[in-house]
Amino acid sequence: MEKFPITDRTEITRLAKRGVYDKDTVYAILDEAMFCTIAYVRDGMPFQIPTGFCRIGDKLYVHGSVGSFYMRELAEKKLPVCITVTFMDGLVLARSAFHHSVNYRSVVVFSEAKKVEDQDELYMALEVFTNKLQPGRWDDIRKPNAGEWKATMVLSFDIQEASAKVRTGGPKDDEEDYSLDIWAGVVPLTTTRLQPVPDDLLKAGIAIPGYLK
Amino acid sequence: MEKFPITDRTEITRLAKRGVYDKDTVYAILDEAMFCTIAYVRDGMPFQIPTGFCRIGDKLYVHGSVGSFYMRELAEKKLPVCITVTFMDGLVLARSAFHHSVNYRSVVVFSEAKKVEDQDELYMALEVFTNKLQPGRWDDIRKPNAGEWKATMVLSFDIQEASAKVRTGGPKDDEEDYSLDIWAGVVPLTTTRLQPVPDDLLKAGIAIPGYLK
Repeated sequence: MEKFPITDRTEITRLAKRGVYDKDTVYAILDEAMFCTIAYVRDGMPFQIPTGFCRIGDKLYVHGSVGSFYMRELAEKKLPVCITVTFMDGLVLARSAFHHSVNYRSVVVFSEAKKVEDQDELYMALEVFTNKLQPGRWDDIRKPNAGEWKATMVLSFDIQEASAKVRTGGPKDDEEDYSLDIWAGVVPLTTTRLQPVPDDLLKAGIAIPGYLK
Repeated sequence: MEKFPITDRTEITRLAKRGVYDKDTVYAILDEAMFCTIAYVRDGMPFQIPTGFCRIGDKLYVHGSVGSFYMRELAEKKLPVCITVTFMDGLVLARSAFHHSVNYRSVVVFSEAKKVEDQDELYMALEVFTNKLQPGRWDDIRKPNAGEWKATMVLSFDIQEASAKVRTGGPKDDEEDYSLDIWAGVVPLTTTRLQPVPDDLLKAGIAIPGYLK
């Protein structure tokens, strides 16, 4: 099992047993996530941007407009970034207030932005990104034209310094609390895709595609 | 309608029409969110922590162990923080790749931590936090004892500099693309609470409480 090296920045020190450094786990969490938040430093102050992203191999990709101030700033100044992804998988209801918790999976990546200049890499990133949001979508849609490609900026981030933190399972109460008359357990949380809503301006006679059923 | 002042840090410059500064909208998003991410700067580098939180009035509260390194650091050094909350409410599937988007609601707050020393405020924050995760839970559980209170740290963050960014509605395509034979619309996303799972060690005869049904 391939692991990320543990560094000063990625070592889980609080509840260390929840730390996970193997690539398969980190990548599975990243691949399930619909968005990440990118933190960076501007004039000594912290900033954060929530954004969609995808992973290809050992890189994360985000895209946006060539007019995006934060993307240009990240790329031109090669600013260090901290990227996180978080899932809340369940509410852990213990018998005591103190042992209430949540089941979660989170990933932290430390990296810096590179502007993607290679056209094949840029094209691939958008295709993977689109199909990550909605599998099967890319083949169905009008591809970007020359002007649209020119208006699109893609940044890549090497994933070399990363870790995950994961909690699963039921509540852990103090020994003497197990005899209390209090319900305890887990309320699982999940993100659900609801029934697709057709655009008001959808052309007549177009059926919902198979990948959306 | 009360609004947050627009500052250099909170002004939405990219797709400015999606910017929302009224308190009711910002607070509704914060109150629905189960977790936030807190970004701060350590030795010039960006860090991020995903954590649960709650809002009371014009303050956000997070809690943790008195042994939490990041919480002590935030409180002792009065570090500036950027706190974000994000919902992805839907995938916006346009006819063109370029106009694919997501419906989202996000909030950014700039603030700094204060350690809560007042016992009433600390107690209230934990009660509100617990009932935010699971309405009705606080009255049902064993309250913290003296040792547990001592082991708990709560930080507050004034919400004075904040803004939201919101996208809703269907895809917006280029005029000439509306005649293409491509399905377009929105796939709504929602977070669902599943059926509660009782703890393996649940005492016999304890029914599931009404607030969990």
